[in-house]
Amino acid sequence: MSVKTIEWKNDQVVMLDQRLLPHKEIIRVCRNYKEVAAAIRQMIIRGAPAIGVAAAMGVALGALQSKTKDFDREFEQIVLTLAKTRPTAVNLFWALERMRKVYSENRDRGVDAVKRLLKIEAQKIYKEDIAANKEMGKYGAELLADAKHVMTHCNAGALATAGYGTALGVLRALKESGKKFDVFVNETRPFLQGARLTAWELKKEKIATTLITDSMAGYLMQIGRVDAIVVGCDRVAANGDVANKIGTYTIAVLARRHGIPFYVAGPTSSIDLNCPTGEDIPIEQRNPKEVSHMFGKALAPKGISIFNPAFDVTSQELISAIITEKGIIRPPYQQNIASHVSH
Amino acid sequence: MSVKTIEWKNDQVVMLDQRLLPHKEIIRVCRNYKEVAAAIRQMIIRGAPAIGVAAAMGVALGALQSKTKDFDREFEQIVLTLAKTRPTAVNLFWALERMRKVYSENRDRGVDAVKRLLKIEAQKIYKEDIAANKEMGKYGAELLADAKHVMTHCNAGALATAGYGTALGVLRALKESGKKFDVFVNETRPFLQGARLTAWELKKEKIATTLITDSMAGYLMQIGRVDAIVVGCDRVAANGDVANKIGTYTIAVLARRHGIPFYVAGPTSSIDLNCPTGEDIPIEQRNPKEVSHMFGKALAPKGISIFNPAFDVTSQELISAIITEKGIIRPPYQQNIASHVSH
Repeated sequence: MSVKTIEWKNDQVVMLDQRLLPHKEIIRVCRNYKEVAAAIRQMIIRGAPAIGVAAAMGVALGALQSKTKDFDREFEQIVLTLAKTRPTAVNLFWALERMRKVYSENRDRGVDAVKRLLKIEAQKIYKEDIAANKEMGKYGAELLADAKHVMTHCNAGALATAGYGTALGVLRALKESGKKFDVFVNETRPFLQGARLTAWELKKEKIATTLITDSMAGYLMQIGRVDAIVVGCDRVAANGDVANKIGTYTIAVLARRHGIPFYVAGPTSSIDLNCPTGEDIPIEQRNPKEVSHMFGKALAPKGISIFNPAFDVTSQELISAIITEKGIIRPPYQQNIASHVSH
Repeated sequence: MSVKTIEWKNDQVVMLDQRLLPHKEIIRVCRNYKEVAAAIRQMIIRGAPAIGVAAAMGVALGALQSKTKDFDREFEQIVLTLAKTRPTAVNLFWALERMRKVYSENRDRGVDAVKRLLKIEAQKIYKEDIAANKEMGKYGAELLADAKHVMTHCNAGALATAGYGTALGVLRALKESGKKFDVFVNETRPFLQGARLTAWELKKEKIATTLITDSMAGYLMQIGRVDAIVVGCDRVAANGDVANKIGTYTIAVLARRHGIPFYVAGPTSSIDLNCPTGEDIPIEQRNPKEVSHMFGKALAPKGISIFNPAFDVTSQELISAIITEKGIIRPPYQQNIASHVSH
């Protein structure tokens, strides 16, 4: 399957509009960095690694188009605009930091050289992400080798990355290794990334998939229908706490009760050693309408208060292992994450 | 507030169409028992106690309209049709059993007398249900006296009963007792009884209400925003296991992890001593379209497999107390339920 989540094409950033999937496959062309920022904010593109790639391409695009005499000031403005789009996934800030490093290390070579190098760096981040996903896939497929029934939450697929996926990359690799298994997909309210995106990806991949509401996950575990759980992540704290899509924590608590292994897959760019614990990870609050409306129509009474946190934090003690492109991290996470990253 | 969930009016059964709430308040008139059965099946009326009342009124209506010479055969047919509507809530079978008892104990007094007595019995079941809810409210309000933030799942309100409600009856009584508190309402996918019905009832009642998706409940407990949970029930087994709306089990597991009391409210007609444990309670599977579609539009890719159990079972060990019209049942449930019912 080739899902083109995002591409650099003719010096523009081209992305699949994920808000319209699975019904319509519409390509959006971002003509400048502000359009890239808007696309991230509006969730035309979403998923921590994909947001990182988009931000990097946004910086490259903004720099390339800069015509001002004060390039340095505009560069700061571009980075700032992209940094403000979404707060939780650390891959965004990681990618901006990489772009900023290319800028500052090469600034003395002149603006044209910097522009060229930023464009190269964005493409490099893109390619590295796909390669990292494939590595994660191999490691994860070994961990899940005996699982017949796998559950996943949200979308950590090709659509959440430059391609292949983190959690779904593991499932792709598992299938490529010849294993037979099926997948329960939590619909993932309110944005329905599971129903709309993961179900769409797995169907294209011809992996047996059953869609459930988030509230059914506990029942499935209770009746013995889940052997393993694999999800992506938006930020891993230094102690192993993981921020991921709202509802992930609940799945992890249920998994613990039922003795089901709970795996997190993400590139090392999702690890934030500057966050000591999950409590230090900012949790994005999104528009209440994501909860109260569907297809523009109200689901709930008018004027009702709504709480819409987009992420939650899963305590490290609930996580069986973290899969990165460098291998498998096991508890105790505090020390093993530090040594894993420095390797 | 006066929500007229169901009424016996001019020898017809009149009900509020709960599928259209909160946007439209449309009254449906059931002109015969088959229409009552269809209304239960289609969830025009839902909620265990309300289904029981509807079934009783359906029997009375069917009997009253019977013109056949073989009244006994038709009576059986009426009871059977209503019994087949939904399998999980025991109140349905309990109400049918009460109607059958009136029939068999008075059959020798002639068909006209039986018809008259069945009509009286249905009204009695209706009135008793409201009275039971008010009793439950008093007992429950004492239990919840110190709770500032209460969570509920699905709708166990006036709409789920003849009036006042079980879990929401407790919240109504709590408000009447002058306590200040607010309520988190889980939207309750797939049918959205929380978003559509509970939010609507609590708003009318002027109780401070915040709507969340089911996947957010764990996060709220984690950040210390929930003091107590109260839900209704569709069937209580002899050992205290409780079948209730899908997702209830998950909430109870989360509550246990966070040391939050988890209360179940239901009339003694929800207790089924013939079910030794929750494993003996049949779990209804409903139409996959409830999960895959909203407002007639697809949420997921075409042809995806869907699992749609309408209920789950919460193990008795996760339940802090069961509130009935007779008082509070505490663990150990096996013996305390038996003595509670026989009192």
